[in-house]
Amino acid sequence: MALIRSVFQDELDGVSQSLIDLSNMVSTSINKATHALIDLDLKLAEEVISEDEKVDSYQHDLDSHIIDIIARQQPVATDLRALVTALRMSADLERMGDLAHHIAKIARLRHPAAAVPAELKDLVHHMGTVAENLSRKIAVVIDTRDTEMAMQVERDDDEMDKLHRQLLGSITNDTWTHGVESAIDLTLLGRYYERFADHAVSVSRRIYFLVTGTFAS
Amino acid sequence: MALIRSVFQDELDGVSQSLIDLSNMVSTSINKATHALIDLDLKLAEEVISEDEKVDSYQHDLDSHIIDIIARQQPVATDLRALVTALRMSADLERMGDLAHHIAKIARLRHPAAAVPAELKDLVHHMGTVAENLSRKIAVVIDTRDTEMAMQVERDDDEMDKLHRQLLGSITNDTWTHGVESAIDLTLLGRYYERFADHAVSVSRRIYFLVTGTFAS
Repeated sequence: MALIRSVFQDELDGVSQSLIDLSNMVSTSINKATHALIDLDLKLAEEVISEDEKVDSYQHDLDSHIIDIIARQQPVATDLRALVTALRMSADLERMGDLAHHIAKIARLRHPAAAVPAELKDLVHHMGTVAENLSRKIAVVIDTRDTEMAMQVERDDDEMDKLHRQLLGSITNDTWTHGVESAIDLTLLGRYYERFADHAVSVSRRIYFLVTGTFAS
Repeated sequence: MALIRSVFQDELDGVSQSLIDLSNMVSTSINKATHALIDLDLKLAEEVISEDEKVDSYQHDLDSHIIDIIARQQPVATDLRALVTALRMSADLERMGDLAHHIAKIARLRHPAAAVPAELKDLVHHMGTVAENLSRKIAVVIDTRDTEMAMQVERDDDEMDKLHRQLLGSITNDTWTHGVESAIDLTLLGRYYERFADHAVSVSRRIYFLVTGTFAS
């Protein structure tokens, strides 16, 4: 019995490690997508676009593996909840990869022109940095189950919301001179970064709930 | 054994019924949100906004119930896959409710002004109708497991994509006179309807896969 439990624990650890790997993959994607966008780097944009399939297939394999563990080990209570939560986190992470992919596609669509006007590059770059920090932090939260860091993720998301409002404020300002197409690009880019952060918060809350049994306030 | 199997089958049927109920709830939400937007009906917008909590709490209870079934019945193979798929479908449906809620919030934000300019009302109304048809159809797909109707959902989503491109085309047209704020509203509205449809397709594909074991081509 002790042996079976130990094998099962190894399997749970393996699932956590795969979620950490996925977090690292999407952290790299959002980093590259932001650089593609800001530095007009078409090669980086193409990389993010082609690597999204790898994220999807990694997530797909992980999900099959989790369901296989549930079927074989028939866990109950806490262990079952951990595995179901892992399925949900992998869905969040896959979606974060999609959002990085959407950002890279806007960079590619406008290349060699810039989707982001010069005076907004710092702001959008800042959003990209906050997004990447969020996905790096959730890898740590998944690994360490550190609830203090989970709370930090919430605060970083507040920062993202602030930057997002600032971006929308710049577009709707009367001094906007970049036309409607650029406004659409920036509206979508803002939305993609904001959703990326939302999914990071979602992962972090799921871990918080697993650890504490309560919702972060 | 036959009795246990039958109780379990009843539980699976109950889960399906709850997913159908959720589909009906989000169908009503997207219908009301579209009318709120097109007819400038603030009361309807408020209804969608306040009812979103009901959708969320219904989904939350359903998820707990599904996990409870897995823990008690310890299903394997097909039955386990059906329950895991139900968890994913409930997440799709909850997100569809959120998107209807976002649409209602734009209607409320701009009230008593219109978020949608007069000449685009028909187009946006059409997107709303396609969205509602999609969520009505997935209720039927969940109920009947009709793969032919699942394929129809894919075709309806093509229609949504066409309408969405048309909307973006109107905004970026040189004759656009409604300013940047309106362009942002319409970009987000278009995105919300499109994502609503994507989640409907996702539900439909999950059922298709459960029934056939293959992906719809």
